[in-house]
Amino acid sequence: MSPETHPSFSSLDHMHMAHALRLAERGLYTAQPNPRVGCVIAHGEQVIGMGFHARAGEPHAEVFALREAGEAARGATAYVTLEPCAHFGRTPPCADALVVAGVARVVIAAEDPFPQVAGRGIGKLRAAGIAVDSGLLREPARELNIGFFSRLERGRPWVRVKLAMSLDGRTALANGESRWITGEAARADVQRWRARSSAILTGSGTVLADNPRLTVRSDVLFAGCAGEEGREVEEAVAPVSHACPADEGFRPPLRVVLDRHLRTPEGSHVLDGSAPTLLLHAAGADDTRNRFGTVECAVVAEHQGRLDLGAAMAELARRGINEVHVEAGPTLCGALFAAGLADELLLYVAPLLLGDQARPLLQLPTLADMAGRWPLRMLDRRALGEDWRLRLRPV
Amino acid sequence: MSPETHPSFSSLDHMHMAHALRLAERGLYTAQPNPRVGCVIAHGEQVIGMGFHARAGEPHAEVFALREAGEAARGATAYVTLEPCAHFGRTPPCADALVVAGVARVVIAAEDPFPQVAGRGIGKLRAAGIAVDSGLLREPARELNIGFFSRLERGRPWVRVKLAMSLDGRTALANGESRWITGEAARADVQRWRARSSAILTGSGTVLADNPRLTVRSDVLFAGCAGEEGREVEEAVAPVSHACPADEGFRPPLRVVLDRHLRTPEGSHVLDGSAPTLLLHAAGADDTRNRFGTVECAVVAEHQGRLDLGAAMAELARRGINEVHVEAGPTLCGALFAAGLADELLLYVAPLLLGDQARPLLQLPTLADMAGRWPLRMLDRRALGEDWRLRLRPV
Repeated sequence: MSPETHPSFSSLDHMHMAHALRLAERGLYTAQPNPRVGCVIAHGEQVIGMGFHARAGEPHAEVFALREAGEAARGATAYVTLEPCAHFGRTPPCADALVVAGVARVVIAAEDPFPQVAGRGIGKLRAAGIAVDSGLLREPARELNIGFFSRLERGRPWVRVKLAMSLDGRTALANGESRWITGEAARADVQRWRARSSAILTGSGTVLADNPRLTVRSDVLFAGCAGEEGREVEEAVAPVSHACPADEGFRPPLRVVLDRHLRTPEGSHVLDGSAPTLLLHAAGADDTRNRFGTVECAVVAEHQGRLDLGAAMAELARRGINEVHVEAGPTLCGALFAAGLADELLLYVAPLLLGDQARPLLQLPTLADMAGRWPLRMLDRRALGEDWRLRLRPV
Repeated sequence: MSPETHPSFSSLDHMHMAHALRLAERGLYTAQPNPRVGCVIAHGEQVIGMGFHARAGEPHAEVFALREAGEAARGATAYVTLEPCAHFGRTPPCADALVVAGVARVVIAAEDPFPQVAGRGIGKLRAAGIAVDSGLLREPARELNIGFFSRLERGRPWVRVKLAMSLDGRTALANGESRWITGEAARADVQRWRARSSAILTGSGTVLADNPRLTVRSDVLFAGCAGEEGREVEEAVAPVSHACPADEGFRPPLRVVLDRHLRTPEGSHVLDGSAPTLLLHAAGADDTRNRFGTVECAVVAEHQGRLDLGAAMAELARRGINEVHVEAGPTLCGALFAAGLADELLLYVAPLLLGDQARPLLQLPTLADMAGRWPLRMLDRRALGEDWRLRLRPV
């Protein structure tokens, strides 16, 4: 990285960029497949314009902030959480708008990985004589759009595997009963993680066994959007957003079923049309359901007698899916881990024991020695009623 | 409980009793089978005498404090973490000593459950015209001697089951390998819990499989006794003591093996004489080892084809065992839980996955429905290196 990306930022810079990040979070539930972006325009301490990107097809954060600033933008500093775009998409380039407005300096948190932008936004600004400093609060800015960056940089979504378990690592009784291991607070929290995802993924086994809806319970989400007093405590690594998914513009995440043989039965909740659904299946499976309203089918390659999980994720990325929220059984969840495709574990732990006959957390290959163990790094941990929520990532 | 046990204590009272509790903790590793007791004698803010009970056969906390106070004890207030004794044991009654010294008031944390004392200490003091207030910081005082109270009140020791597991609840690989799931800090912490226990219990299966020593590694303990600067952070519920088990007077905990058929092989570490050992076995097993030096054998009744765990615990209580530290496999640990004999779970959790083929945490009866789950209450939780230590109790 060149030295120019490491200027020494002032405390004022930090304050404004943190503000811009909080604005960006307001797009948490609605911006996808676009990134969540915030912008603050300021003269010294004085904020003269604010904006965030609410949803695809609508203006970008910079445009809202410039509108509010008006003529006062001349000579000001613009703080943007993502490198301003330099290409004509559904809206004109934000870099051009900043140049026209006459801002003197642009501070950027994270560089845009999008091929049509990548450095060109910064280039345009500099060519116009604007001072550009990049990299301020880059990590939280990237965290906020971790799925967007994953899709653009790795060609696959960010895969977050949600599991709820007893203290002895069991997700259901031997007879399959799992309602409920965790309490109401934990289950409400899950709704928020579903809501921020572009897709909710499961396997046909879970569909057949549990017939899940895989939708977002809006009553739970409304309850969390009570305004300032109902605001959640911020976390260090990935801030919980203050955005309300019940805001206008929330679209339910795509329900994705890994369904090699298209076993999902007619009448399943995932086929009820209450949210878009995609069945990923192997070539040769009967795809007559292709013609059913909101339910789409797509072929994914096979690998060793099962759907190729990497290919499935590539297909989802191709469809603009940033974050995938997985709620599935120990087989599929374990396979995602074993394939190195599980990027994050969202683990709810209830303070109770279910015993060794109950169902395991993850089916993983048998280890020959301790060197083969799967290390994880704890991102954060919080109490939710009697339960704990851990977020972990493979090391 | 009578109203007289709930006087309103002053902040000065709280301060001195908290001080007495910290003194009591100095007997953590040495006082057993006696309780850990501390005493402070004060005139107002001024402390004129301090003492704690270091080991059985030596003077009680009150005696040390009175010696230090000397004549100044007259008219002072004595703060004692446990009701002063009223009977002649190996030392004369402390209640008498307090009367003779002429203290004006005695504040007591916890009432003594010992049959020869129970209320008689308080009675003696009151009969001599001394004001007695009881119940100040009773809960931490009882926690500090939880094994002592358990033995006296329930006729069985306090049973603390130590387990180290992966995040998915696995204690060893399928091939039995378990070295190491947790890191050095967690393993050093285990040594301190071993050291404060009167006995370390395992099963013959673990002896045969792992040949454990079940001793206290003094090098680890010395390392934790560096003085003020090395002092550990206090915890809310059960304070980590500042006592150093390497102090003169530390006696290694009794090693107890539940060994129904006396299968413990000659040459096992538990038979090496480095610490006293007790083999509990069924009637009729070959007990010729009875005659081997430090190794003692005792018969315990059987129940449904295995040693009666309740009877085993009663036998240990009879031998003056306060706290039992269990390090055993999932069968014995699960049986203790299922029998309602596991009072506390000391659970070390490493941030890694071992998979469903690895060994389970606890073998428990198969549950028919979620109502049968085993709820636990979290007492405290702390980070130890990369690992977590949880202390939990069955609800």
